[in-house]
Amino acid sequence: MTVRVGVVGYRGYSGAELVRILGGHPGVEPVLLEHRADAGGHSGLLHPSGPATIACDPQIIKAEGIAVVFLATPPEVSMELTPELLALDCRVVDLSGAFRLRTVENYAAWYKAAHTQPELLAEAAYGLPEFCRERIPAARLVSNPGCYPTAANLALRPLIEAGVVDRAAGIVCDAKSGVSGAGRKASLTTSFCEVTGNFSAYSILKHRHVPEVLLTSGLEEREFSFTAHLIPVDRGILETIYFRAVGVHAAEDLLAIYERRYRDEPFVRLYRPGRVPDLHAVAHTNFCDIGVIFDAATGRAVGVSAIDNLVKGAAGQAVQNMNLMLGFAETEGLL
Amino acid sequence: MTVRVGVVGYRGYSGAELVRILGGHPGVEPVLLEHRADAGGHSGLLHPSGPATIACDPQIIKAEGIAVVFLATPPEVSMELTPELLALDCRVVDLSGAFRLRTVENYAAWYKAAHTQPELLAEAAYGLPEFCRERIPAARLVSNPGCYPTAANLALRPLIEAGVVDRAAGIVCDAKSGVSGAGRKASLTTSFCEVTGNFSAYSILKHRHVPEVLLTSGLEEREFSFTAHLIPVDRGILETIYFRAVGVHAAEDLLAIYERRYRDEPFVRLYRPGRVPDLHAVAHTNFCDIGVIFDAATGRAVGVSAIDNLVKGAAGQAVQNMNLMLGFAETEGLL
Amino acid sequence: MTVRVGVVGYRGYSGAELVRILGGHPGVEPVLLEHRADAGGHSGLLHPSGPATIACDPQIIKAEGIAVVFLATPPEVSMELTPELLALDCRVVDLSGAFRLRTVENYAAWYKAAHTQPELLAEAAYGLPEFCRERIPAARLVSNPGCYPTAANLALRPLIEAGVVDRAAGIVCDAKSGVSGAGRKASLTTSFCEVTGNFSAYSILKHRHVPEVLLTSGLEEREFSFTAHLIPVDRGILETIYFRAVGVHAAEDLLAIYERRYRDEPFVRLYRPGRVPDLHAVAHTNFCDIGVIFDAATGRAVGVSAIDNLVKGAAGQAVQNMNLMLGFAETEGLL
Amino acid sequence: MTVRVGVVGYRGYSGAELVRILGGHPGVEPVLLEHRADAGGHSGLLHPSGPATIACDPQIIKAEGIAVVFLATPPEVSMELTPELLALDCRVVDLSGAFRLRTVENYAAWYKAAHTQPELLAEAAYGLPEFCRERIPAARLVSNPGCYPTAANLALRPLIEAGVVDRAAGIVCDAKSGVSGAGRKASLTTSFCEVTGNFSAYSILKHRHVPEVLLTSGLEEREFSFTAHLIPVDRGILETIYFRAVGVHAAEDLLAIYERRYRDEPFVRLYRPGRVPDLHAVAHTNFCDIGVIFDAATGRAVGVSAIDNLVKGAAGQAVQNMNLMLGFAETEGLL
Repeated sequence: MTVRVGVVGYRGYSGAELVRILGGHPGVEPVLLEHRADAGGHSGLLHPSGPATIACDPQIIKAEGIAVVFLATPPEVSMELTPELLALDCRVVDLSGAFRLRTVENYAAWYKAAHTQPELLAEAAYGLPEFCRERIPAARLVSNPGCYPTAANLALRPLIEAGVVDRAAGIVCDAKSGVSGAGRKASLTTSFCEVTGNFSAYSILKHRHVPEVLLTSGLEEREFSFTAHLIPVDRGILETIYFRAVGVHAAEDLLAIYERRYRDEPFVRLYRPGRVPDLHAVAHTNFCDIGVIFDAATGRAVGVSAIDNLVKGAAGQAVQNMNLMLGFAETEGLL
Repeated sequence: MTVRVGVVGYRGYSGAELVRILGGHPGVEPVLLEHRADAGGHSGLLHPSGPATIACDPQIIKAEGIAVVFLATPPEVSMELTPELLALDCRVVDLSGAFRLRTVENYAAWYKAAHTQPELLAEAAYGLPEFCRERIPAARLVSNPGCYPTAANLALRPLIEAGVVDRAAGIVCDAKSGVSGAGRKASLTTSFCEVTGNFSAYSILKHRHVPEVLLTSGLEEREFSFTAHLIPVDRGILETIYFRAVGVHAAEDLLAIYERRYRDEPFVRLYRPGRVPDLHAVAHTNFCDIGVIFDAATGRAVGVSAIDNLVKGAAGQAVQNMNLMLGFAETEGLL
Repeated sequence: MTVRVGVVGYRGYSGAELVRILGGHPGVEPVLLEHRADAGGHSGLLHPSGPATIACDPQIIKAEGIAVVFLATPPEVSMELTPELLALDCRVVDLSGAFRLRTVENYAAWYKAAHTQPELLAEAAYGLPEFCRERIPAARLVSNPGCYPTAANLALRPLIEAGVVDRAAGIVCDAKSGVSGAGRKASLTTSFCEVTGNFSAYSILKHRHVPEVLLTSGLEEREFSFTAHLIPVDRGILETIYFRAVGVHAAEDLLAIYERRYRDEPFVRLYRPGRVPDLHAVAHTNFCDIGVIFDAATGRAVGVSAIDNLVKGAAGQAVQNMNLMLGFAETEGLL
Repeated sequence: MTVRVGVVGYRGYSGAELVRILGGHPGVEPVLLEHRADAGGHSGLLHPSGPATIACDPQIIKAEGIAVVFLATPPEVSMELTPELLALDCRVVDLSGAFRLRTVENYAAWYKAAHTQPELLAEAAYGLPEFCRERIPAARLVSNPGCYPTAANLALRPLIEAGVVDRAAGIVCDAKSGVSGAGRKASLTTSFCEVTGNFSAYSILKHRHVPEVLLTSGLEEREFSFTAHLIPVDRGILETIYFRAVGVHAAEDLLAIYERRYRDEPFVRLYRPGRVPDLHAVAHTNFCDIGVIFDAATGRAVGVSAIDNLVKGAAGQAVQNMNLMLGFAETEGLL
């Protein structure tokens, strides 16, 4: 007996990845929900196969028995669709930034737009299972974390909780992402000739993912400097995180903190002292890989955190959340 | 005493390459002509330098003493601007496909659009200097060849003229181009994530550059099969050309034909028997490189022709034409 | 009850892909066989997981109960290991070119080396299931096809069998491959800076995969012109195949031939008239996708065939063969 | 009357770039010096052209009247060749790391090798013209700076001299380089399939370029955290530099410091407040582009510095030094 789950925005990169992952999940049957804003575009296959497509219409969704809907849509579309779906008793996993912060003021400050669903903002469960697993199983609305914050928080929070990060000295997170993070759309900025052979920084100190890191890690904005960069690759995020460590004598001490925290986490992998992950290590997987370098003479530490932005940074984590919501094993369909 | 020359479409890839080449040409001063259709976009430099910018307005162009205007614009814009410029006694080098064919019927058949300037179509000199050098110096309007036809015709015409190509057996030209050939614009098709890691065929047997090859090479359409492909690189064209050779005994015989024909051509380079060029060999140069393989036992021959689509396939060849029009050495600014 | 299967050469690109595919196959347990020629290199993971590793030693292999061994090794290593493994009653799927041809003379002519196992050359079953399915289930030794021939033969043979290809006019196969086809090794030719931004032709008319195409398609060498090219992508093969079609009136007629032939084949997909596949369509899949363009006025036809060289062109097809050998569903672990 | 200059290591990426730049320099004639360690490799051109090649032999170099020799060689080769060349009254511009530090102890600590020419280490002039211009004209031996330190020092030193960097809070330099920085050689690490689609950190906190930054900027090691990363591009370096600014109120204040310092420098370009360079801005140029972001509320500042590692980071800066040594205009051949 499989559960029917719907995907809005299935032509985007995160949405397509969701459809791929759900197609290999033994407990669910994915259904494509065609939203009015979708661009056309059909496979050239003579005999196309794949999930059924139905209109993204509340009555049809209800009639089709869709239990969970994934929204791989812009925030404004998510804000519009979510209340309609919840009213039908559909549960929602939203992959946009619409419900990741906690107050309309914070949302307005970072997203430069008014939030139209303040109650849902307050209600949404933040879907970073490694730190917020309790609220997810019963949640009507799970807000899937941003890609950059997922990699940053998994690397930072255990060390901050353990008190080994000198917050006064400031933490630098130099983040790099593949181009699929910008979504699937016509844009000169992400056109091939502008990106290939290039590398660029953007949203320096003011990326809208910053407040998500602050909320989860407990850091203050003045303590945390974040810059995003565009790598000429299609997928993957690597973050190089600089801080001063206090109360530790070796990289092994930092790793021991991670080991204790992540011993039972299936999707966090650690590296031996002196070793760090690269993008290939995590491509097409739901893992977050973490390594750390420490210079005992000066206290300087550098952590490196890597994820696939479309998997642990989007679709994979969304399925991880769905697994928790529907009572499946958390790793089902993801290993 | 330098000659002032204008560039319309200077923000496109061919236009920007033109500005770069003209900037290193000792005999001319480039001026940027701002056309109403130009997208915005300014350098972030605190103290920008570079050529002057003026409006692409006939009266201003005349007042500024612009002698030659390069049109790096779509065909419909070229058809609109060319008569205005010629009326002002400006000479024009058009980089679009507007004036490359000879009849409005042929234009309509391949470009799927009506030609609005039939007289200019008849008047334009085709700017492939290696084969059409005579008419260029005195021409008011030079039509710069397409990128694919430049590589194809330089490889094919000497052999066809020498009678060593078995036309009845058919010639196959399998052509591959970098993405800048599609122009600088927002488009999902040429976005980074769609192109990287990919390779695709397009306009199979019906690319609008085919008639240019037929006109210059003398081949009939039924004798010439052409397919274009998109390579995930920013610039460069490589064409692999298959034919049956008659009346020759070795690759050296084919090379001897090329050597005789191109002995005095500064921009065609030949390869030793068994060797062929790649894209790196011609990147950022105005050369067309040609090599040929021959299997004496069966008569099968394969030629490989490579150019930089933005240089010999566009801006460089346009400057080569300008040199002929203005009486400069043909290689000025191009070596 | 799973079957233990071994992989020699598991650090190469094809070998690693095999391990990945076998890891998701419910009926087998992969074991890594460490061969003396293997380069070192270990994951930096603190707690590595994955298949067990044992020495590639006949007695150990026997003791460990390995039923099938995949050889993702160079031909000379395959010629050395295969008789030892068969003597132990291990069955072998060889991914090298060692056993793809039928005579030592043909092998010597194309591989420029002596064949040391002529009896095994004669015995080996050619593992292209779509055309040679009968002999595979009972074979001791299956020779997995080359990547280029897989794409070429699947596109060509149905049409040749149907008699619609004008063989006298010659067939051109212009083939392009990603860089993983060259294997995983230190080499200036395949170093990043030499390949990125580049595109090159190699082995023009004399690639060692040509005789495999001739054997399966029935074509003569003089009728078939083949050139290989290197695309700056990691994986994927696209072949553009030119021929004259006889006895057909439309692309639909050619497609109907494919449809009849491939109706029950799970890994061949066809495209609607006018549509052709690209590399992204088949990346990370075991599909061979085929589309065809036809110009009725002249009889010229162009077929486009695409595979992932590491999957249908190597590891995926090897597992497809293993499924047939061990009695699993042919698609097990491959969809 | 041109000056003859020699290039050792002309087949490497920096050496080939040197040959290209010197070929366009009106005052010099480049000569290729064939060193015994050079790998073979010849162009396939039927009629190759280009600079003359002579053996890298002291007597021949003297007989040929070579005035300046560029060493685009590994440090150990530079240490061997330099004294021989100086003994012949040839002047040397060394592009390796052999002579960039000041003491054998420092060299041994960072290069993990003994220095065999301590006197030359003491004598060499450091070739960063923007800060060390005085000693270069009369120097026998100029040590061309490393690529990473060039970008770092040009961004950091004016601000440190002006006293606006809070050194106690620490400076982070997150540096990214294209693959040509690793040199031209066969290596699995820099092979196409390992690099494409990937991004990785290396030499975290212990890159051998660190001491060059410390020497020029005046920073202490404990104040400066540096990590190098590999970008999947062929050329270019971008460094993102984080620091706390003191005594300034706006990005304009930081820019004003740069403007005063670089007003007369032809190869440093500044960006407007809020804008920063990317790799495309500096590709194939000798410019170092710098932009800065400042958050007045918290004092956090981020500078971005970009160069082409093969030009301002190697061959271009070497020619800039040669221009100073030979009395040419500093920009000759470089604009």
